[in-house]
Amino acid sequence: MTRTIIESKSKSAVLGFDEPFCVIGERINPTGRKKLSAELEAGDFSTVENDAIAQVSAGAAVLDINAGAVFESNPNSHETEPELMTSIVKLVQDLVDVPLCIDSSVPAALEAGLEAAQGRPLLNSVTGEEERLERVLPLVKKYNVPVVAISNDDSGISEDPDIRFKVAKKIVERAADYGIPSHDIVVDPLVMPIGAIASAGQQALTLIHRLRSELGVNTTCGASNISFGMPNRHGINNVFLPMAIAAGMTSAIMNPVAPAVTKKKIEVKKSELEAKGVILPEDMDDETIAQLFGLGSTTPRAGSEMEAVRAANLLTNNDPNGGDWINFNKPAKSGEKRDAAGRRRRARASSPGSQ
Amino acid sequence: MTRTIIESKSKSAVLGFDEPFCVIGERINPTGRKKLSAELEAGDFSTVENDAIAQVSAGAAVLDINAGAVFESNPNSHETEPELMTSIVKLVQDLVDVPLCIDSSVPAALEAGLEAAQGRPLLNSVTGEEERLERVLPLVKKYNVPVVAISNDDSGISEDPDIRFKVAKKIVERAADYGIPSHDIVVDPLVMPIGAIASAGQQALTLIHRLRSELGVNTTCGASNISFGMPNRHGINNVFLPMAIAAGMTSAIMNPVAPAVTKKKIEVKKSELEAKGVILPEDMDDETIAQLFGLGSTTPRAGSEMEAVRAANLLTNNDPNGGDWINFNKPAKSGEKRDAAGRRRRARASSPGSQ
Repeated sequence: MTRTIIESKSKSAVLGFDEPFCVIGERINPTGRKKLSAELEAGDFSTVENDAIAQVSAGAAVLDINAGAVFESNPNSHETEPELMTSIVKLVQDLVDVPLCIDSSVPAALEAGLEAAQGRPLLNSVTGEEERLERVLPLVKKYNVPVVAISNDDSGISEDPDIRFKVAKKIVERAADYGIPSHDIVVDPLVMPIGAIASAGQQALTLIHRLRSELGVNTTCGASNISFGMPNRHGINNVFLPMAIAAGMTSAIMNPVAPAVTKKKIEVKKSELEAKGVILPEDMDDETIAQLFGLGSTTPRAGSEMEAVRAANLLTNNDPNGGDWINFNKPAKSGEKRDAAGRRRRARASSPGSQ
Repeated sequence: MTRTIIESKSKSAVLGFDEPFCVIGERINPTGRKKLSAELEAGDFSTVENDAIAQVSAGAAVLDINAGAVFESNPNSHETEPELMTSIVKLVQDLVDVPLCIDSSVPAALEAGLEAAQGRPLLNSVTGEEERLERVLPLVKKYNVPVVAISNDDSGISEDPDIRFKVAKKIVERAADYGIPSHDIVVDPLVMPIGAIASAGQQALTLIHRLRSELGVNTTCGASNISFGMPNRHGINNVFLPMAIAAGMTSAIMNPVAPAVTKKKIEVKKSELEAKGVILPEDMDDETIAQLFGLGSTTPRAGSEMEAVRAANLLTNNDPNGGDWINFNKPAKSGEKRDAAGRRRRARASSPGSQ
């Protein structure tokens, strides 16, 4: 049975067909996030810290670390990324105990992350492009780590799933030439948006099934890509994940944290309530309003991707005796409620925006 | 490609691997429902009428009709069921245009339903029990209808999926002896509760996959059985359906109507609001409270089984151009909004809290 082992200093995450689905938290990633880039440039790592803690508490078994920030003082991220990768890896592994996934398109940043990470991180990623294979596979061998293999090559991303399968097979074979076993290759079949390619879901499911049954490898993907450009993205993601798990997918790089309730959503709800003649106490805080009026909360529950993943674990018999499912669906105890309120108070007290 | 065709007088439903998933509405069924049995005995068919309309409007492509009521005047349902079946079938097909599924364990009631139904109903069901095979298959042949084949036999329901597969194969072969083609056999692999058998989900998925790839038959099941006895049953059902669809299941007998918000749920919410100091207008109706406070409504939306089925159709490329998905997720039209605004204005005008 194929088992991919990812380790921190003290904890393991295992990808396998008879293991719970492995959720790799995607949030620590400044790509395309100007505000986070500016924070990082100013040496402010609070968003990274919050994202690390929130993702682990929501159920991430591994955290992806991407340091692709664009600094005002030096917009060439190829130069700044390795040092920033080192800082974030050190910070996160001091804060939480889950294994890490070192994510970059810059080989020097991959190497910096491998140097800084304790244990056996997952390397993200190699592709079928010749230059990448020659640059990244030696790192995989040298550091003895598993690697994400993305199924595109020098000719780009094929729309033909047979070609994507062949690219994956080529990477597995090339890795074998370096003495890297196939259980350390986690193939990303490249999930395309269904809004652009109507057969994207079918393609992904067929490819995942072949990767499992013919190549025998573990798989991962950027799951939310499937719903890009469509309405009700969560409704699609929540169903794609179980279908992909049924086809054999063993992990995904995804956001385990339910979307926080925005100020705007709360304002809209307040106007709606006012129009209906509902009177709220003046000092009622936003979190209470969100909870009372079913706007969701920072805890993922009904209709969330993490609920779907947990139910899929139960249905594939990878949640022995349903313990995780039953625990996930327990109402919060009164003690925990008090603690949560306490945490919110403390968080507010120390937050610069709360004065 | 296997295609099972079910017809009313004017409409077809097709089960197939390249067709949208076929939802068979389960609600018209007095089994174990004393109140409904009493209504039917008194000649009151209003619940049946409401259930027929609600299920079709929620997206059911076929309606299951079960007449297994227990009458006070004659508790032997074997005697009363055929006549009641005739009445309900006639009533429902006058009311809605979707095809029907004639559901009984009483052969005379099956025959009464077949006589009364226009078009080509689905017969529910035959099993691998010798007596049932000999009694039901001639009806299937005589009326030229498709039939649900449940994979148990004279030895009961096996926990071994290989035996259940063999029972299904036996039924297909026995039907062939009668000249009934395999595309008219819709196999029910018998979904067991995961709370009783930890591997029930895996078993069902493996069996569905084999039934599709080895026997080439369409499949159906009582989907909600999987979550019996577990907390958050919808969370499990919503994930089991897409996994089963990914494995090859082409229909399910299920409740397409989102659970109505109960009085009790609303009372609990009212007390919670009162405790937090929220003041509601005295004349606010329950439906408005349910909508405002995120308790759900009678319209299935986020986190419902019908949402999961629609997303699965999209992901298997059985919703061309995503038209059904986009339509399902459209906000209410402006006309509807205006009406809602009108209702709000009226509510405000008469609300004691809005002066």
